[in-house]
Amino acid sequence: MKFIDNYVQKFVQEDYKNFESEIFRIDKLLKNKTCVGNNMLGWQDLNVNFKKIKNVAENINSNSDCILIIGIGGSYLGAKMAIDFLNPVNKNKIYFIGHNLDSEHLNNILNKIQDRKIHAIIISKSGNTIEIKATLDIIFNFIRKKNKQNLHKCFTVVTGKNGFLRNFAEINNWQILDIPDNIGGRFSVLTNVGLLPIAISGADIEKIISGAKEIKKNIENSSNSNYNYCYKYAIIRNALYKKKFMIELFSSFSSRMISFIEWLKQLFGESEGKDNKGLFPTSVFFSTDLHSLGQFIQEGSKILFETIFFVKNLKLDLKLSDKFENYDNYKSFNEINRKIFESVVLAHHDGKVPCNIMEIEEFSELELGRLIYFFEFSCALSALMLGVNPFNQPGVEVYKKIMLNK
Amino acid sequence: MKFIDNYVQKFVQEDYKNFESEIFRIDKLLKNKTCVGNNMLGWQDLNVNFKKIKNVAENINSNSDCILIIGIGGSYLGAKMAIDFLNPVNKNKIYFIGHNLDSEHLNNILNKIQDRKIHAIIISKSGNTIEIKATLDIIFNFIRKKNKQNLHKCFTVVTGKNGFLRNFAEINNWQILDIPDNIGGRFSVLTNVGLLPIAISGADIEKIISGAKEIKKNIENSSNSNYNYCYKYAIIRNALYKKKFMIELFSSFSSRMISFIEWLKQLFGESEGKDNKGLFPTSVFFSTDLHSLGQFIQEGSKILFETIFFVKNLKLDLKLSDKFENYDNYKSFNEINRKIFESVVLAHHDGKVPCNIMEIEEFSELELGRLIYFFEFSCALSALMLGVNPFNQPGVEVYKKIMLNK
Repeated sequence: MKFIDNYVQKFVQEDYKNFESEIFRIDKLLKNKTCVGNNMLGWQDLNVNFKKIKNVAENINSNSDCILIIGIGGSYLGAKMAIDFLNPVNKNKIYFIGHNLDSEHLNNILNKIQDRKIHAIIISKSGNTIEIKATLDIIFNFIRKKNKQNLHKCFTVVTGKNGFLRNFAEINNWQILDIPDNIGGRFSVLTNVGLLPIAISGADIEKIISGAKEIKKNIENSSNSNYNYCYKYAIIRNALYKKKFMIELFSSFSSRMISFIEWLKQLFGESEGKDNKGLFPTSVFFSTDLHSLGQFIQEGSKILFETIFFVKNLKLDLKLSDKFENYDNYKSFNEINRKIFESVVLAHHDGKVPCNIMEIEEFSELELGRLIYFFEFSCALSALMLGVNPFNQPGVEVYKKIMLNK
Repeated sequence: MKFIDNYVQKFVQEDYKNFESEIFRIDKLLKNKTCVGNNMLGWQDLNVNFKKIKNVAENINSNSDCILIIGIGGSYLGAKMAIDFLNPVNKNKIYFIGHNLDSEHLNNILNKIQDRKIHAIIISKSGNTIEIKATLDIIFNFIRKKNKQNLHKCFTVVTGKNGFLRNFAEINNWQILDIPDNIGGRFSVLTNVGLLPIAISGADIEKIISGAKEIKKNIENSSNSNYNYCYKYAIIRNALYKKKFMIELFSSFSSRMISFIEWLKQLFGESEGKDNKGLFPTSVFFSTDLHSLGQFIQEGSKILFETIFFVKNLKLDLKLSDKFENYDNYKSFNEINRKIFESVVLAHHDGKVPCNIMEIEEFSELELGRLIYFFEFSCALSALMLGVNPFNQPGVEVYKKIMLNK
């Protein structure tokens, strides 16, 4: 993992120094746990009971050939992004449902898995979210029809200390894993919330945590903003925001990165988007969207900057024929993709679009853990610099209240 | 199809009148074909040779059980959105490739279709796009290995009068369909570009064109901006842009709408994003993203407005059990979704986010045709009001030039 700021420096130079003193102050608040929202800093601890998670995962895997994960927002985005990123052996056993109420979407999945041995995992801190309750209602009856005996062995719940879901699980004698009180949904991927599905998928959860711990240690050891890339990234985001770059456009060239970016969109959007402030996080996938939003990025309103992900070492590379090589001088897909990436950075930078680059070594557990902690910590820093509480999300409740009142 | 502006009026009231006189002037330029970019207005003609397209589609369908569509940008987004919207009988035969250079993505598809009878359709005005050439190279060799005899019958090309692809097709004796000179990629869904794949999918292309013609006629007959919803939408977009709402967020509640919105993003992004101007078009899918970007929309920077799609009549609706009804008082997924939709509009409007609503009657060919023409015409109007040429895309070439020079 390597954060490169060469193509953003000229846009932030003048302001960088001013923000630098601020970052030390904020970093201290975060580390001393004296910042706003300091009751929600549990994600920094990285305490994981590997044995417990692995046992539960193994047990579920050996008793089923299809896993339904019922979750929404932070209760599924972390697991999904990790599994898409790592592409582990059991990936195709796992379906994420409950994050929308599109009947056709769920029905198509149910038709596909009718004859499979299903285990459902319901992940929700309270279980009061209506999408989760409604989906559980359908799935509970779907599984009950197929499996009258030992019904209770078909369900696992990951939930908080209190609430509808814990009660429901206890009544039905379902297995329960805890969600700590002091970690919010979008920071929960390295708890039972994310790690249980990831362990089931076959990925190595200990290595992911090792990667996260490595970055945590790096941050603690480098208090200079030239070496601490979390500092750097948080400063850049705030300096660009101050200059009216209002959109952070996350872009990538690998389909495995698409869910990772969805996770980032929640992380930053929910952490910063409050008090009428915040960078709007959104995404493109290249080269697909170079032929769709590329025109806007290059020559449209100067309101956005990019954070571009590029994965250096890919296992698979489709080779082109000699004939192709003759007229275009490229040998493979990856070679062209790298050339497009390099050219896009230069072109967008010339078009006055600041471009952060995050170079990823490879799709591995270690690298994923590093990325997760890097972005969680940077996000907390960045939101605190912006002057908002990174760990609440009062606005999510507004439409729910309207739903209940009428 | 019904465009509702109740939840946007208060944001644009003061400016609406000023923009109204402007829209008549621009509408006249567009209709008299005297506007900038007037050599690219062929999409208004809606001239289609149904017999030819249907014959070619039937022939391809009867000789293959897997169709690869190789296209990027406007050469595939229109067909993809129509097929996802309509969900026709042959949908699962069709794979869209060539719009990225992710080796894994293409390789997974090739592994899946190894034993199928494949027909490849290459769609590109020039065929010079590197993604298309590289994908064609892989596919040509993939099909050749399986099918030495009658190889030329496995390919169809949809292309312009000149260029690499036409030459390559002629040399190899492949079937060729034309792309008119006077229609650009993002306006080409109702030509051979979009209609051939759509016809292959089993959808009724005549009905789509009927829907488009109906809206065209409506526009011609109502020169009052209270009745002409294209006028209204174009004015609203420009009035909001003037008030620094810089992002148009397209949202929907049906997974079938996701590709439609991708098509819209190209349509508006490429048409307007030039001369350092334009609304940035982006998307969310509800309720998934209410638990991700919902916080930002509700309480973040006041830089965005929404255009929300809601489909009124859906064939499928998952019913909830009596037990569920007892504690939450909802009978089905669609009932909850409608309630969320209504509450979200009120909540976001209260949060100072202007909300256009586009109510869609049902997922039908007629309705799709109406939507397509509505958005194409509105987009042309809107871009002309903004003072840019809606029909060029010079910025797409910038990174390509850098690629060639080094």
